[in-house]
Amino acid sequence: MKDYYTIKLHDTDAAGILFFAHQFSIVHDLYEKFLGSIGYGFKERFDHRDFFIPIVHAEADFNQPLTVGDTIEVALSVGRVGRTSFTLEFRLTDLDGTVVGSAITVHVTTDPATGRKIDLPESFRTKLEQAAHSRD
Amino acid sequence: MKDYYTIKLHDTDAAGILFFAHQFSIVHDLYEKFLGSIGYGFKERFDHRDFFIPIVHAEADFNQPLTVGDTIEVALSVGRVGRTSFTLEFRLTDLDGTVVGSAITVHVTTDPATGRKIDLPESFRTKLEQAAHSRD
Amino acid sequence: MKDYYTIKLHDTDAAGILFFAHQFSIVHDLYEKFLGSIGYGFKERFDHRDFFIPIVHAEADFNQPLTVGDTIEVALSVGRVGRTSFTLEFRLTDLDGTVVGSAITVHVTTDPATGRKIDLPESFRTKLEQAAHSRD
Amino acid sequence: MKDYYTIKLHDTDAAGILFFAHQFSIVHDLYEKFLGSIGYGFKERFDHRDFFIPIVHAEADFNQPLTVGDTIEVALSVGRVGRTSFTLEFRLTDLDGTVVGSAITVHVTTDPATGRKIDLPESFRTKLEQAAHSRD
Repeated sequence: MKDYYTIKLHDTDAAGILFFAHQFSIVHDLYEKFLGSIGYGFKERFDHRDFFIPIVHAEADFNQPLTVGDTIEVALSVGRVGRTSFTLEFRLTDLDGTVVGSAITVHVTTDPATGRKIDLPESFRTKLEQAAHSRD
Repeated sequence: MKDYYTIKLHDTDAAGILFFAHQFSIVHDLYEKFLGSIGYGFKERFDHRDFFIPIVHAEADFNQPLTVGDTIEVALSVGRVGRTSFTLEFRLTDLDGTVVGSAITVHVTTDPATGRKIDLPESFRTKLEQAAHSRD
Repeated sequence: MKDYYTIKLHDTDAAGILFFAHQFSIVHDLYEKFLGSIGYGFKERFDHRDFFIPIVHAEADFNQPLTVGDTIEVALSVGRVGRTSFTLEFRLTDLDGTVVGSAITVHVTTDPATGRKIDLPESFRTKLEQAAHSRD
Repeated sequence: MKDYYTIKLHDTDAAGILFFAHQFSIVHDLYEKFLGSIGYGFKERFDHRDFFIPIVHAEADFNQPLTVGDTIEVALSVGRVGRTSFTLEFRLTDLDGTVVGSAITVHVTTDPATGRKIDLPESFRTKLEQAAHSRD
């Protein structure tokens, strides 16, 4: 899944470039869109409270400084889908196709009532695996 | 000028709704787009350093709680254009047309070198006045 | 109630100064501390879910640009305490005593289940009124 | 170097816990304090524009959910100090001493004019190495 994002003034700091932590928010925006596209949007999660999907690990590389007004393409792909966790990979490219950054997030599924890890719900896992094998 | 915005998880807080301060960031995003559309994007401001446009006053009403995944329409209109300042008015409506929030920002133009107020550059003022009188 | 705050890099933007919306977050931090000090911290609100305190209006003046590393004093005072709402007033001063900014927030109390406005709980109102009449 | 931090409402999201990206901002706050303590605060960097210190990699683990009002201890230690880069390690513990999260950031030094990597300025490297070998 891909989307475009234009760096906002509030994404930058006094060094004139994207504040590193905000790159994580930017990729998370695409993740939210992805969850919605497979029928598991956050709105439903908070209404149903059937399972939550906290992030247990995140990492990012910052290859090029990004400044206000820069438009980038953010691409999400589903990586490993395990029993209780899955990994998402993000790549940020500028409009010339240069990779300007990347990120990885690792998610687990938990029971909202207890906060304990649970297996990925079967239908959710299926959707993730389909996305992992799709070409878009 | 109008645009759509979908409330992101990081716009919300533990009360489950949009954290009030983020409404100001959301309307500012549209302001950035507006500045770009009249040829005065922030990128150029920071490159040219001819004038800066700090905000000296802001206010907002929060009529309805907004939650993650809610899509709203944000509309910007140019209010008063003075000698050294101008006012922007924002209206946030849900997809049923209900006004869920609003904001006003007052901007002045300053000399980036001294930080002192200066008159609105003539060509910039013209663009603002045109926008103030347009219907879109 | 007063506290010191030092402007962080992520509070600033590419113009080199505090991004205006973040001033609202900064004053809200002191409000959280204030709520805790009168026995109504957010943690308890979310545990008890007896009443929520959404903000329905906010405004701020930005008198002086603030840059990374600037330490300011933030002062909160309780303004009007009504039947279903109350007002807080914030003043930001630099270490020379110059007022660099201010803010006002208007809060209502609601039933978390229905989202409807309710009267300020009596014990909460008493605490607010005591704070309104105290000198600190 | 160590400091305490209390999770603010705007650090949390509708899931009721710290939004993961904000953990990076929280550790960066301590980094800013550390830079100031060794005489290399951001204010001076932006005034002198002698060298910038962009982050090229960041990662974090999120061991325990943190909620509004939780007070944690954040500890910074200097890891590897290379020719053009250095690594910082952060550990977040609750008041019982349980590790609730961690982070690593990798920084390079660049020439603000060209954006190109430069060797760590000698006096800056010395300060980092002293900090790496200190026990506090």
